[in-house]
Amino acid sequence: MLIHLDFQSDIPIYLQLKMQIIEGIATGKLKPGESLPSVRQFAEDLGINLHTVNKTYNLLKQDGFILVHRQKGVVVNPDEGPKVTEEYLTQLHTELRPMIIEAFCRGMSKEEFNKICSQIFLELKEKGEG
Amino acid sequence: MLIHLDFQSDIPIYLQLKMQIIEGIATGKLKPGESLPSVRQFAEDLGINLHTVNKTYNLLKQDGFILVHRQKGVVVNPDEGPKVTEEYLTQLHTELRPMIIEAFCRGMSKEEFNKICSQIFLELKEKGEG
Repeated sequence: MLIHLDFQSDIPIYLQLKMQIIEGIATGKLKPGESLPSVRQFAEDLGINLHTVNKTYNLLKQDGFILVHRQKGVVVNPDEGPKVTEEYLTQLHTELRPMIIEAFCRGMSKEEFNKICSQIFLELKEKGEG
Repeated sequence: MLIHLDFQSDIPIYLQLKMQIIEGIATGKLKPGESLPSVRQFAEDLGINLHTVNKTYNLLKQDGFILVHRQKGVVVNPDEGPKVTEEYLTQLHTELRPMIIEAFCRGMSKEEFNKICSQIFLELKEKGEG
């Protein structure tokens, strides 16, 4: 799986890495039980700090996307991954709110906004099936 | 208008400040033509760096939410503010994508996702009318 990090972005590297791993899982590029590089290896491959990879892995582990085995190393959760929890819904609301505020302020209707979201959902579905 | 900054958040302070000013405009708490504090004053009031306020103001000015007058200082755009531009749509897509990827990965349907967005739109509308 190819990781592309944008060092100019306002989005911190550990979050970019997290989202790309989740995208890999979502689209089936990363299979349940599949191994991920060790912290050291990943940091070296991507030219980033060990702590950054560690932070990403800790968040993914905390959310249940990956498991960290003492022997097998880092693997994609072989069972069903995380679901929609109350905690996740709260987080999603917090993240969406500023975006919707700006859209609202620019005069975008909720129908237009939802159309964009639906398109992204569709793209992901097609990627997963492709 | 009360600004609340979360210094523990992963969201940079300049972005938190930007979004809260846009929210003020969106909900009518900040009226077209209304004055905003000077960079120095705002930084002092909020206990943050001058550069942070400067960055926020530059972004808001660039997007057309505020104007910076040599004499009148910083004011909310007295004319119609920014609209939905191609550039904005691209930015919105980029920001929404990682969120939708995670929702998709957790098994959320686009209908459930859109329902949350619609709720936030509704909240803003009610705030604006209140």
